[in-house]
Amino acid sequence: MAISVETFFLSPDSQGTLQAQIQQLIAEGILSGRFRRGEKLPSSRKLASHLGVSRITVTLAYTELLANDYLTSRGRSGYYVSENAPVPPSFSPPKEREDTVDWSRALGRRFTGGVTPDKPKDWANYRYPFVYGQTDPSLFDHANWRLCALQALGQKDFTALTSDYYDQDDPELVEFIARNTLPRRGIIARPEEILITLGAQNALWIAAQVLLTQRRTAAIENPCYHALRDILNQSRCHVEPVNVDKDGLDPARIPKESDVIFTTPSHQCPTTATMPMTRRQALLDRAREIDALIVEDDYEFEMSFVDAPSPALKSLDTEGRVIYVGSFSKSLFPGLRLGYLVGSESFIREARALRASVLRHPPGHIQRTAAYFLSLGHYDALIRRIRDALKSRRSIMQEAIDHSGLLVAGKGAEGGSSFWMQGPSASNAAHFAQNLKQEGVLIEPGASFFSSDTPPQNFYRLGYSSIPAERIPAGIDKIARALSQEQNWP
Amino acid sequence: MAISVETFFLSPDSQGTLQAQIQQLIAEGILSGRFRRGEKLPSSRKLASHLGVSRITVTLAYTELLANDYLTSRGRSGYYVSENAPVPPSFSPPKEREDTVDWSRALGRRFTGGVTPDKPKDWANYRYPFVYGQTDPSLFDHANWRLCALQALGQKDFTALTSDYYDQDDPELVEFIARNTLPRRGIIARPEEILITLGAQNALWIAAQVLLTQRRTAAIENPCYHALRDILNQSRCHVEPVNVDKDGLDPARIPKESDVIFTTPSHQCPTTATMPMTRRQALLDRAREIDALIVEDDYEFEMSFVDAPSPALKSLDTEGRVIYVGSFSKSLFPGLRLGYLVGSESFIREARALRASVLRHPPGHIQRTAAYFLSLGHYDALIRRIRDALKSRRSIMQEAIDHSGLLVAGKGAEGGSSFWMQGPSASNAAHFAQNLKQEGVLIEPGASFFSSDTPPQNFYRLGYSSIPAERIPAGIDKIARALSQEQNWP
Repeated sequence: MAISVETFFLSPDSQGTLQAQIQQLIAEGILSGRFRRGEKLPSSRKLASHLGVSRITVTLAYTELLANDYLTSRGRSGYYVSENAPVPPSFSPPKEREDTVDWSRALGRRFTGGVTPDKPKDWANYRYPFVYGQTDPSLFDHANWRLCALQALGQKDFTALTSDYYDQDDPELVEFIARNTLPRRGIIARPEEILITLGAQNALWIAAQVLLTQRRTAAIENPCYHALRDILNQSRCHVEPVNVDKDGLDPARIPKESDVIFTTPSHQCPTTATMPMTRRQALLDRAREIDALIVEDDYEFEMSFVDAPSPALKSLDTEGRVIYVGSFSKSLFPGLRLGYLVGSESFIREARALRASVLRHPPGHIQRTAAYFLSLGHYDALIRRIRDALKSRRSIMQEAIDHSGLLVAGKGAEGGSSFWMQGPSASNAAHFAQNLKQEGVLIEPGASFFSSDTPPQNFYRLGYSSIPAERIPAGIDKIARALSQEQNWP
Repeated sequence: MAISVETFFLSPDSQGTLQAQIQQLIAEGILSGRFRRGEKLPSSRKLASHLGVSRITVTLAYTELLANDYLTSRGRSGYYVSENAPVPPSFSPPKEREDTVDWSRALGRRFTGGVTPDKPKDWANYRYPFVYGQTDPSLFDHANWRLCALQALGQKDFTALTSDYYDQDDPELVEFIARNTLPRRGIIARPEEILITLGAQNALWIAAQVLLTQRRTAAIENPCYHALRDILNQSRCHVEPVNVDKDGLDPARIPKESDVIFTTPSHQCPTTATMPMTRRQALLDRAREIDALIVEDDYEFEMSFVDAPSPALKSLDTEGRVIYVGSFSKSLFPGLRLGYLVGSESFIREARALRASVLRHPPGHIQRTAAYFLSLGHYDALIRRIRDALKSRRSIMQEAIDHSGLLVAGKGAEGGSSFWMQGPSASNAAHFAQNLKQEGVLIEPGASFFSSDTPPQNFYRLGYSSIPAERIPAGIDKIARALSQEQNWP
């Protein structure tokens, strides 16, 4: 590639002759990795005119750099970065100076320091990745996704691809969700009751901003999805953790001062408990009694393969009390960043205005691609394939776990994509997870799911949505061995 | 498409026989537009098993619907929605009941009611669209964008396409911005000083959240980008509007209590003024003097074609005081929703944590597509083409305006994509814009750019980035005539 003349500037407070300054600009570009071997420099005429210096000055600078072997000349075709020029590992200019800004004072708010743990980004390089929520390349329908993306990139969809929608969504995606996706959860909603979001994370965040203030109280499940706790802590509302049992959230335990109840009735996160129908009705009754709203996170309803999924809590809601969060992260892929909120028009209107201010709208092209993938039936086929694979992996998991003597704390009545595991009470999952990583096994320690200063350390989650079935037994075996060594620890 | 059995639920409080309930489910699905002509129903066996009723019940319901011509039977292949079934205009189920939730109390915060005006989404259907910030299909390099998107959809980039990056960006895009884009603005930044955002809107929003609180003061230009005023009003900080002049923001007028100064030095929005070098230095001096930070919105630097663009304010910053906002909305397209923040590591770290909580990361596929488009040189070629077209349109605009007698209030020393116009002092741009719309002419009234309860009503903006050159003279002529009629108004 040619180096653009527009990247050259003479600094007003530079030292030395113009020629020396130009030499230094180029040498620094090469040494920092900005200019790479073989890249072409601007002609001396162009650079001279751009910098407002005489052409001979640029020519002399180039000649000097030729002599130092930073540049080579290819006759009439001009000057290039020499194949002998130094190569830094990657573009990483040195930090030239320390800021004089006092950031401890300048930052108005801090958002770092949340409870969501770092997860290994290179999980695919591990042999036994019991990770949660990533895409399995062997299951995803890459070919049809590509075709749908191509179609959405066509001339017919130019507007959907390029336009600023301001606060709107792709009407084709919204209609498909209303006609086909929500009815599977027993939910009938009109387009003005639906908002497309940047994934379920964004949907939960928006719901929290619209419904909560510093004077309001959110009831959350304990344990629960750690990123939700970060969202609520940042919103500075009061947070009341409510312990879950084998049927999920117990309505009777929800404090009466709660304004908003966050719950995962289909597959409680992380214990995987499914809330029975009678308890769902009791939860709605409790919400009415204390005049609270409910945010229902239905993050992996498609992953039900043992039993047909129960209809969503939202489908039982006759009062507008439930706000429903859906996601395509588990059924399509998380990097897509597409989810949706369903709720009363008064709520969705504020949520839409907030989203417009924060980010306007999810990119048009990905919305249209998803609309095609769904409406052409590829989504249904993909879900069937994923369910079949998860069903088979689950029974392999179960068998290997039974054989190994590990203890399952929750495995989901309807299916799901993970087991919630309990180590011996003295064991520390963060510790044996670290040891297992050395052996190529990734598991997720459970402590960060708990709202407590002294969370139990012995729980962990085993996802089976990304690990090949044939590696499960050996992986479980390694976990069992690491755990037994853990027990022998002093 | 086949109608999924999973969309059928019997409600626990339904009336009537099971057969009647099933008939009603299907009839309602057809009448609301959820099931469409020609779509196939589940087999009676499947539906019976799903609902837990006897197969004869389903068959009787289907037979009844056949008789009513809601369904047709195609022998062994099953039941379909009849071609004679009623067709509603689109899927829009009736609102069944009023919420019992009192939303005036339930909403914790409101985000509607901002100053950003509604813009016509169907601008492309108007003959004279002097709109701002949309994509011109005749200039955009659709073919190469499509090729880059295809490449990013390939097997090699599967991880970039599908993965949850948590709080990370695509390293290829970040490196390209650091190596090639920022140096054009005279800015040298390391990857940890760069954050990819969902467009400039998202970048400004994040900067406001991290830097401002209810006890801090933001100085903004007056007039300024209306969406920025919405962002700051929502953040509840104190806002000080500072009148701009022909050189943009005047540092001497910035109140000393300002904590953050928002500015658009390259092309002041909306007046298009370019801030001279001496004033940029004075602005940095003023910021140091009052210990304020500066957020520089460099939203259309690529659109400089009259003069080479001056280096960014950020390039003069030796203290870490300037936070830079870049965007690909003007140079690629706004529906892409890609922008970036550049600032000191302490700032970017908090901005990244906030972004992770709000939306995690911009979708991987669009980041990688943009990285390819940039690195293959298509972006440079596109910018050259856009500049050439804008340069020619600008001179046609200027000639038509001179000829028509309209008054230009600002037109940008370096170029840009709009003129800032001033009508006679008694005229009302909202009023004549409405009249012009009837004639197929879209202009943007200027009042909403001003921070004032009684903003001047006679300013308006004429964008020329989406109107074909040959229509400019007739469009300007229509504007001049509408304005002269406006003056004759009682």
